[in-house]
Amino acid sequence: MPFPATAVVPRATPRHALAEAFDAVRAHSCTLAAPLSDEDQCVQSMPDASPVKWHLAHTTWFFETMVLQPCVPGYRPADARYAFLFNSYYEALGPRHPRPARGLLTRPSGQEVRRYRAAVDGAVRRFLDSADDATFAKAEPALTLGLHHEQQHQELLLTDVLHLLSQNPLDPAYRPPAHAPAARAPTPLGWVDHPAREAVIGHAGGGFAFDNEGPAHRVLLHPYQLADRPVSCGEFLAFIRDGGYRDPQWWLSDGWAAVSTHGWDAPLYWRAAGTSEPTSFTLHGLRPLDLAEPVSHVSLYEAAAYAAWAGARLPTEFEWEAAAPAATGDVWEWTRSAYDPYPGFQPFAGAAAEYNGKFMMGQVVLRGGSAATPPGHVRPTYRNFFPPSARWQFSGLRLARNL
Amino acid sequence: MPFPATAVVPRATPRHALAEAFDAVRAHSCTLAAPLSDEDQCVQSMPDASPVKWHLAHTTWFFETMVLQPCVPGYRPADARYAFLFNSYYEALGPRHPRPARGLLTRPSGQEVRRYRAAVDGAVRRFLDSADDATFAKAEPALTLGLHHEQQHQELLLTDVLHLLSQNPLDPAYRPPAHAPAARAPTPLGWVDHPAREAVIGHAGGGFAFDNEGPAHRVLLHPYQLADRPVSCGEFLAFIRDGGYRDPQWWLSDGWAAVSTHGWDAPLYWRAAGTSEPTSFTLHGLRPLDLAEPVSHVSLYEAAAYAAWAGARLPTEFEWEAAAPAATGDVWEWTRSAYDPYPGFQPFAGAAAEYNGKFMMGQVVLRGGSAATPPGHVRPTYRNFFPPSARWQFSGLRLARNL
Amino acid sequence: MPFPATAVVPRATPRHALAEAFDAVRAHSCTLAAPLSDEDQCVQSMPDASPVKWHLAHTTWFFETMVLQPCVPGYRPADARYAFLFNSYYEALGPRHPRPARGLLTRPSGQEVRRYRAAVDGAVRRFLDSADDATFAKAEPALTLGLHHEQQHQELLLTDVLHLLSQNPLDPAYRPPAHAPAARAPTPLGWVDHPAREAVIGHAGGGFAFDNEGPAHRVLLHPYQLADRPVSCGEFLAFIRDGGYRDPQWWLSDGWAAVSTHGWDAPLYWRAAGTSEPTSFTLHGLRPLDLAEPVSHVSLYEAAAYAAWAGARLPTEFEWEAAAPAATGDVWEWTRSAYDPYPGFQPFAGAAAEYNGKFMMGQVVLRGGSAATPPGHVRPTYRNFFPPSARWQFSGLRLARNL
Amino acid sequence: MPFPATAVVPRATPRHALAEAFDAVRAHSCTLAAPLSDEDQCVQSMPDASPVKWHLAHTTWFFETMVLQPCVPGYRPADARYAFLFNSYYEALGPRHPRPARGLLTRPSGQEVRRYRAAVDGAVRRFLDSADDATFAKAEPALTLGLHHEQQHQELLLTDVLHLLSQNPLDPAYRPPAHAPAARAPTPLGWVDHPAREAVIGHAGGGFAFDNEGPAHRVLLHPYQLADRPVSCGEFLAFIRDGGYRDPQWWLSDGWAAVSTHGWDAPLYWRAAGTSEPTSFTLHGLRPLDLAEPVSHVSLYEAAAYAAWAGARLPTEFEWEAAAPAATGDVWEWTRSAYDPYPGFQPFAGAAAEYNGKFMMGQVVLRGGSAATPPGHVRPTYRNFFPPSARWQFSGLRLARNL
Repeated sequence: MPFPATAVVPRATPRHALAEAFDAVRAHSCTLAAPLSDEDQCVQSMPDASPVKWHLAHTTWFFETMVLQPCVPGYRPADARYAFLFNSYYEALGPRHPRPARGLLTRPSGQEVRRYRAAVDGAVRRFLDSADDATFAKAEPALTLGLHHEQQHQELLLTDVLHLLSQNPLDPAYRPPAHAPAARAPTPLGWVDHPAREAVIGHAGGGFAFDNEGPAHRVLLHPYQLADRPVSCGEFLAFIRDGGYRDPQWWLSDGWAAVSTHGWDAPLYWRAAGTSEPTSFTLHGLRPLDLAEPVSHVSLYEAAAYAAWAGARLPTEFEWEAAAPAATGDVWEWTRSAYDPYPGFQPFAGAAAEYNGKFMMGQVVLRGGSAATPPGHVRPTYRNFFPPSARWQFSGLRLARNL
Repeated sequence: MPFPATAVVPRATPRHALAEAFDAVRAHSCTLAAPLSDEDQCVQSMPDASPVKWHLAHTTWFFETMVLQPCVPGYRPADARYAFLFNSYYEALGPRHPRPARGLLTRPSGQEVRRYRAAVDGAVRRFLDSADDATFAKAEPALTLGLHHEQQHQELLLTDVLHLLSQNPLDPAYRPPAHAPAARAPTPLGWVDHPAREAVIGHAGGGFAFDNEGPAHRVLLHPYQLADRPVSCGEFLAFIRDGGYRDPQWWLSDGWAAVSTHGWDAPLYWRAAGTSEPTSFTLHGLRPLDLAEPVSHVSLYEAAAYAAWAGARLPTEFEWEAAAPAATGDVWEWTRSAYDPYPGFQPFAGAAAEYNGKFMMGQVVLRGGSAATPPGHVRPTYRNFFPPSARWQFSGLRLARNL
Repeated sequence: MPFPATAVVPRATPRHALAEAFDAVRAHSCTLAAPLSDEDQCVQSMPDASPVKWHLAHTTWFFETMVLQPCVPGYRPADARYAFLFNSYYEALGPRHPRPARGLLTRPSGQEVRRYRAAVDGAVRRFLDSADDATFAKAEPALTLGLHHEQQHQELLLTDVLHLLSQNPLDPAYRPPAHAPAARAPTPLGWVDHPAREAVIGHAGGGFAFDNEGPAHRVLLHPYQLADRPVSCGEFLAFIRDGGYRDPQWWLSDGWAAVSTHGWDAPLYWRAAGTSEPTSFTLHGLRPLDLAEPVSHVSLYEAAAYAAWAGARLPTEFEWEAAAPAATGDVWEWTRSAYDPYPGFQPFAGAAAEYNGKFMMGQVVLRGGSAATPPGHVRPTYRNFFPPSARWQFSGLRLARNL
Repeated sequence: MPFPATAVVPRATPRHALAEAFDAVRAHSCTLAAPLSDEDQCVQSMPDASPVKWHLAHTTWFFETMVLQPCVPGYRPADARYAFLFNSYYEALGPRHPRPARGLLTRPSGQEVRRYRAAVDGAVRRFLDSADDATFAKAEPALTLGLHHEQQHQELLLTDVLHLLSQNPLDPAYRPPAHAPAARAPTPLGWVDHPAREAVIGHAGGGFAFDNEGPAHRVLLHPYQLADRPVSCGEFLAFIRDGGYRDPQWWLSDGWAAVSTHGWDAPLYWRAAGTSEPTSFTLHGLRPLDLAEPVSHVSLYEAAAYAAWAGARLPTEFEWEAAAPAATGDVWEWTRSAYDPYPGFQPFAGAAAEYNGKFMMGQVVLRGGSAATPPGHVRPTYRNFFPPSARWQFSGLRLARNL
C-alpha cells in the first residue's frame, strides 16, 4: 500500500471512537499535503480538478457548516467569507465561488488554511468533549458523514495532484519510492462462474453508508463469468499494439469521437506507448511501465473498447457487487451501469440532500477502490461514479462474460 | 391523428406484403416532404438536425447499400459519390460527409434526390419481382430493417422541420390545420397501482424488432403507481408559474447547469409562457397553448424537475413496459432509465451492427410514441433514446410513484 | 473578363442617366443569380458569408429604407417584417435578424424575394418618373449610394457562392467556361521606381465616392518601388515548395498562429498543392492551376509572409494610390495599411453614417479590384477592407520595396 | 509616484554605468515581487497574463540566452530545461511551454527561481568585470536590450498582479497605502492648438530605442488640438451616467459587439459605477473612485466611444508625439493609430528580430507611460501596443479635435 493508512472510520460510533477517527482522518489529510509546497497546493490544473488547499479548506467548511453551526449555540465561523469560497456545489447553502476559478485563490494562504483547519478541529474536539448526549446524537450523523466526505477528498487530492504534476515538463514526483518496485510476473487471467440468481443489492444497515447505496433491494442476475483480477497494463498494451485505438469497431460512438477529437492513443499518463520502452507518469514520478500492474487512468470508453476487443464486456454494477471480488485495492473498476437511483432511493436529509442524488444522470458507476483510497473507506456496496470520459481518476476495468 | 397514415409494416413478411409495405413507406416519406419547398428541404437548422432532402436521400442509400449492393449481382449505384454524402454514421462503410455540413449540400438538388429515390425504388421493386426465394430470404431482413429505419426518419423529418420553421421570424406553418382544434377540457390525473412482480421485458420474437429490444429477460419490479396519462401543458404551466425554472431544488445538477447556461424558462417551442396568453409553435404554426394537450419538447432534465416538484418521479423503462399504458400516441415519454444494453444483448449482424449498440452511453430511454410517429411503427418493447438535454423531439413525460 | 458587364454607374447623375443605371445595376444582380437554383441561393456556408437570396433582398431593402420611405409620401413597405430580416448592421434602424442565422430563412422563398425586388424596382421607377426636382435632388444621394452598395454586394454574392460550392464534395461549377483557358506564359516581374514626394491621397470631388475615401489630403511618400503586376500562382507555388508555410520566420505572429491552428498550407481554394498537378476550385469548377494567373484567396498573413520570403514587403495604401497601377482587374491587393480614418474623416449623414466608419478598427485596406468586381465600380481612391485573416475574397498581393 | 524608483537605464553605456543599471534594474524586479507570497507569484489569472514567477524567470532567461550564451565561452545554462519553460515567443529559439499553461509550473519553486536569478546575475557581473573590450562591445546591445526588456516586464508584473488580485473575492491589496490619498479637485480640461506642419517622427539616434521607434521620418500633420490632460474618472463617469455603454452610436462595430458579449458597463476594475458610491479596485485595494484621477483600464473601444460622445476623437500617434505632452505619468494613452511599421523599418538583428516586428498587425499604439512604468523607461518616441480589446493595462485616453 503506497500511501500511509488512516484509521478506519468506525461503523458503530461511540463518542470516543468517533473522536479518535476524527483526529486520524483530519490528520491524514495534512499528511497527504505535507510533501507539497504551498505553490503546489494552490494551483488548479483543470476545471475538473481542485487545488489541494481548496480540498483542505472545503472539508473543514463541511464540518463547520454541517456540525458546528447547527449544533454549537453561538458558534461564529472562523471567517464569514469562507462560506462563499469553500462551498462546493450546495445550492441550498447560497452562492459560491465558481469551480473553474478555485485556482485563483492565492488568498487565503496555505498557512491561513492550516490555521482554519486547526481552529475548526479545536471547536469540534471541544464539542465532542462537552456536548450532552442529545446534542451529540443530533450531530453524530453529520460528523460521521464529514469523515467519509473527507476521505473521498483525500483520494481526489491525490488524483488532482497527479494531474497537476503530470502537466509539468520537469516530471516532478509527489513522493519518490523508497526503492524501485520489483518487477512482478503477470498472473494468467482466470474466470469465476456465477449462475443465475436473485441477489440483494445495496446497503442493508449496520454501519455507515452513503444514501446512494440504498435501499437494499432484490435484483435478478443472469448467468455470467467475472475475471479474477483487473486487466493488466501488459494486456492493455497488446490492445494498443493491435491498433485498438485506431479501429472504430471496438468503440462506443461517443468514445470514438473522443479518440478522434483528443487524439487519445494510450491511457492518460502513459508515454511512449508505441516504443519498446513505454513509461507511465505516477505519484512516484516517471517510471517504466509495470506490465503486471492493473491498467489505470482509462475512461469508460477505453475500458469498453478493450473489453469488446477481448471478446468480453464490462460487468454491471449488480454483477460486480454480487460477486464482491476480494482484492480490488489497485484501481476503481468501470462497470456498464449508469449511475441511476435504486428503487425507493431517498437522499440524505437537510443540506446533505445534494450530496449524491442530483448527480444521477450522465455518469457511470465504478466499483472497488484504488491505491489512493483511504483504507477502510469502501464497502462492497460502495458506488463511485464519474462521467464516461473521465481519465484522471485511478480507473481501470475487470472483464465479464455471459455464461 | 394529424398526419396521414402509412401502411403498417408487416411483422410477417411474405413477399407481396413486403412489397406493399415498401411502396407505402417510401411514398409516405414523399408525402411528408410535399408541403415543403426545395429550399425548406435543403437547410439544416442545427448540427443535431438534418435537412429533409438528406433524410430522403439517406434512407434511399440505406436500401441501396444494405439490399441492392449485396443481393443484386452487378448492381451499380445510382451515383458512386452518394455513399460519401449520405452515409450517416456507419464507420465500417467508409468515410462520410460531416454531419454539421449536411445543410451545405445544395447539390444534388431536390429534384435529383427525387430521381435517386425513384431509381432505387424501381431497382428494389424489380428485385422483389424477380429474385429467387433464396436471394429474397437473404435480403428480407435488410429490407424489413430498411422500412423501419425509414419510418424512424419520417418522424425525424418532422421534428427537424419543426425546428427549422421555429427559427424563422415569419412563423411559417408546415401545414395549416383544416380548422382550429376544439378546446378540450383537461382530464383529472389518475393513478394505476402495480404490485411487485417479476416481469418479462424485451421482445420475445414474432415480428420485427430492433436489436436493442432484446433479448427478452426477467426483471424484478418493486411496487409502484403509474399515472393514467402524460403530464398536460396546463400542469406544466403551473410548474412554471410556481417558479420551477428558478429553483435549483427540483433539478438534477446538469439540468440546473443547462437552465442557467441556456436561459431555459419553458418548453422549447412555448412563447410568452409568463403572460396570460401563452402560445406554442407547432407544425400547424403558432397557436394558443392547449392546456389539455400533453406537454411536449421538454428535456429529460425538465421532465425530472417537474416530477420532483409534483412529488413524484419518472418511471423506469421496465415499469413503463410492464404497465404498457394504452394510448400514448401524443408524446414520447422520458423514463428514468439510461439506455443500457439488455443482458445478453447482441447487435444486428453485418454493417447494421452499428445501428444501435454503439450509442448505448450517455442517452436516456423514451417509451411510447408521438403524433409524429408513423402508425404501426412502435411496440410496447420499443426503445427510443436521446441525450438528456434534447428538446427538439416530441418528448413529454408520465409520472410514477412508489407504492 | 469572365462575368457580364453592367453599365458603369454615372458619376454625374442627371435623372435619366440614373434611371438607366438603376435598371442596369438591378438587372445585373439577377443575372448573377440566374445560374443558381433556389437551394443554392438560400444556404449560408459560414457566418461571414450570406446567402444569395439575402443579398438580393438586402440590397432591395436598402432602396426601400433609404429612398422610398423618406422620399415617397405614404409609401408602405412591401412587407413590414422585411426590415427585421434584411437589415444588415444598421443599429440606428432597429433590431435585426442575427447574421449567422441568415441561412435559416427558407421563407420568404426565392420567388417571393424576386417579387419583392420587382415591387421595389417598380416603385423606384415610378418615383424617378414622377418626382419633382426638389424631391429628386433630396433622394439622389441615397439612390446613387444604393447603386454602389448593390455593386458591392454583387461581388460579395460571387465570393459567397464560390465558398458555398467549394464546400460541396461534388465540386459543382457556378458557370462552366465556354472553353478551356489557353495556358498563358508567365510574364517576368518588373519594378517601377517612385521617388520621394508629397502626394494627394483620397477623393477630391467630381463623381461619387464613399465617405471613407475622403477627405483628400497630403501625405509624404518615401522613395519606393512597386511591382508592375500582382504575384502569380507560379511564384506563390515556389514559396509553398520552399516550405514557406512551415517556417515561422516569414510570418506575423497572428499569422503563424492561424497557420498552426487551421493547418493552412496553400491558398484557400488550392488543392493538391504539394503534388505535380495542383488544382484550384473556381467559379468555373475545379481546374488545373494556372501559373500565370495572379494568386488569389490569400489572407493578409499569407500575403505578408510571401512578401517577406521574396525579400520585399507590401505597399502602403498611399504608395499604391500614388502609383495607381494600371490594370489590376484580377485580384484585390492587400496593402500594409490598417483601415484607419483619413484626417478630417466625416461619415455619411443619416442612417448611412454606419456604412463605413464603425468598421475602422481591426481591418486592413485592399486596393484595386477583382474579376468579380462590377466594371466601373472602382476608382484609384477606392478602399476595400477585410480582417487580416480573411481568405474567401478575391484577394492577392503586389510587392513593394524601399528604394 | 506610488512605486519605488529604479535607476534610469543610461542611454550612453560606459561599462560601469551599465553595471550599475544592471544591478538596479534586476533588484527592482525583486522589490516589486517582495510583497507577494510564493502562491501569489505562481498563479496565472488568464492566458494574457503571466505569473510573477514566470516574469522573474523569463527576464533572467533573456540575459542567459542573449548575453551569456553568445558571449561567455563555455557558459552552461543554470538548468538546460529552462530554455523550454521560459522562452516567451521566440520561434527561432526552439519549442516552448504553451503560454496558457504558465500557471501550472509550481516547479521550479519560487525559491528556485530566485536562485536562478542570483546565479545569472553573478555570471553577468563576472562577465562585466572581466570581459575584454571587444567582447563587451559585442555584448553591450543585448545587455542594454535586456534591461529595457526587464523594465517592460516590471510593468507587466504589476498589471498581472492587479488582475490576479481583482479575481479574489477577498479583495486583497498588493500594497496598502501609507495613508488615504487626499481628494484632489478636478482640473478643468484645456486645449492646446497645433497648426499644420511637417514633423519628424521616431527615434533619431542618441541613446537606446526599440526597433519599432525607427527610423525617424517626416510626417505631415494637419491642424489639430490636443487636450492638456487625460480624461478623468469623473468625466468618464458622466459618460456612463448618460447611458454611454448602452448606445451603439458612440461605438466602433467590434466595440459594440464586445460590450454586448461581455456585458461591459464600466472600466475593468470599477465597481458599483451605477451607485452613488462607486469604487475602484487598485494595487492598494478597493478604494472610493477618485474623480480627479485619469480613467484607467479601458479598452480602445471604450476610449473611442468616450471621445465620440465628447464630440472629439483620439489623436494619432503622430499628433501625440509631435505634441509630446509634458506629464503623462498616470496612464498609457490610446491613440487612433494601428501599430504599423514605420517606413524603412528594420527589426533588431539576430534572435531579437522577433521582439517587435511580428506583432505589427491587429494592435493599436498607446503613448505616454503609467504609474506602473519604471521611471526613466519611456521616451516621447516610445510605442506601446495592445489589441483594441485589452483592458487590464493601465490604459486611459487623451482627447484630440480637428482645428
